[in-house]
Amino acid sequence: MESLTLVKVGGKIVEEQDTLEALLDDFAAIEGCKALVHGGGRSATRIATMLGIESKMVDGRRITDAEMLKVVTMVYGGLVNKNIVAGLQTRSVNALGLTGADMGVICSEKRPVVTVDYGFVGDVKQVDGDRLASLIGQGVVPVMAPLSFSKTHGLLNTNADTIAAETAKGLAKHYKVNLTFCFEKKGVLEREDDDDSVIPHITPALYEEYKQKGIISGGMIPKLDNAFDALRHGVAQVTITKASELGKDTGTIVTL
Amino acid sequence: MESLTLVKVGGKIVEEQDTLEALLDDFAAIEGCKALVHGGGRSATRIATMLGIESKMVDGRRITDAEMLKVVTMVYGGLVNKNIVAGLQTRSVNALGLTGADMGVICSEKRPVVTVDYGFVGDVKQVDGDRLASLIGQGVVPVMAPLSFSKTHGLLNTNADTIAAETAKGLAKHYKVNLTFCFEKKGVLEREDDDDSVIPHITPALYEEYKQKGIISGGMIPKLDNAFDALRHGVAQVTITKASELGKDTGTIVTL
Repeated sequence: MESLTLVKVGGKIVEEQDTLEALLDDFAAIEGCKALVHGGGRSATRIATMLGIESKMVDGRRITDAEMLKVVTMVYGGLVNKNIVAGLQTRSVNALGLTGADMGVICSEKRPVVTVDYGFVGDVKQVDGDRLASLIGQGVVPVMAPLSFSKTHGLLNTNADTIAAETAKGLAKHYKVNLTFCFEKKGVLEREDDDDSVIPHITPALYEEYKQKGIISGGMIPKLDNAFDALRHGVAQVTITKASELGKDTGTIVTL
Repeated sequence: MESLTLVKVGGKIVEEQDTLEALLDDFAAIEGCKALVHGGGRSATRIATMLGIESKMVDGRRITDAEMLKVVTMVYGGLVNKNIVAGLQTRSVNALGLTGADMGVICSEKRPVVTVDYGFVGDVKQVDGDRLASLIGQGVVPVMAPLSFSKTHGLLNTNADTIAAETAKGLAKHYKVNLTFCFEKKGVLEREDDDDSVIPHITPALYEEYKQKGIISGGMIPKLDNAFDALRHGVAQVTITKASELGKDTGTIVTL
């Protein structure tokens, strides 16, 4: 089975021209099949503010009303996505920008209101891995915006980490997928304040141990839970690293 | 050779929710292979104004500086394009939104400065008809934003009529292409103030006659010149009609 590298980068990296250019250089240098998932929350907040639309967040998640949905459609699907696509094409990477609506590749359901009404936010139901694999087989490099599609509600704002994990799972039957999450640290750290204390390899047993010792806590727990979920659904390997370390042999590798 | 209907709709239609919904119903009802090219200038102007960016026009053409390029990338590639894609997917049309950068389908050159510096505006050099035909052959319906791509300059703002005509030419070797321009009148009119005086059929000889008599003048001349250019490059038929008449046997048919 052929390998595929699926890279997820957050908004911070893709929204600044210099970090974006460096990322695109590194991503272009990755050999073999690949795909990119990006965020863009900071730009969405900035443009929304300029348009007089207030950004409302609950536990770090955006409340997406009809006006905010227009903003994220513009910013994620247009500004950020097409800027990445053009930057990759300039580097001779045959990128294709996609939202979940394009060819219906990522279908979701509008999140039901339990305690919080998140508005036009989607929980992913199905990724069309066959369609994506067919494109990739034709030499195309998908660049995916954090927007999914519901036949009843249309476009829905969707967490980019989730898009990445679900896409990795959807592609797992076609490829040996290495899902790489780029974030601000070099990997999962043994000591929070020491960027060089990267834990090189985490397995489920080590994960339990680190959690009990309090070494892994807070926002890293849902990230790793997601990683293990992806692995249990056939993804070969999850890597957590810094964007600037992409393609290097650093970061934390997560396997079963 | 299989037929393909390529519809171009201006911004006015796709920017208002009610006319857009009607258009999408009509477009969804078109049988066989099809593709859509859209404008979006009014939304671009509106969003630019809200962001404090002035729209500068020369002879009805937008001057696209770096800030305006961001706006059209957001609006054409994001807001308008993805709204159409989602609306078509809701209607079970397997739409895929594309700018010229996506898979490099529409390559252009930055317009050289002669008397006017149009900024980041592209003149189309090449449409990848093979790539588009391959997608269409897989049941995909391309929805194309008026943005092209240059390897040296990245995304470039491009006239939607030109995108439509060049795409039609690019697809002509794969399909019997009927290029349909939707605009505000029911077709080319014999009497400007009488919307029912549609000229049903125009050939090059009739075109010359109508021009000499002053029946065809002004902005209709470049439209028809474009139409004949497309026909001379293998496009089977050009139709000029009103969006609300799409799929009906009305409008002006242009052939060689």
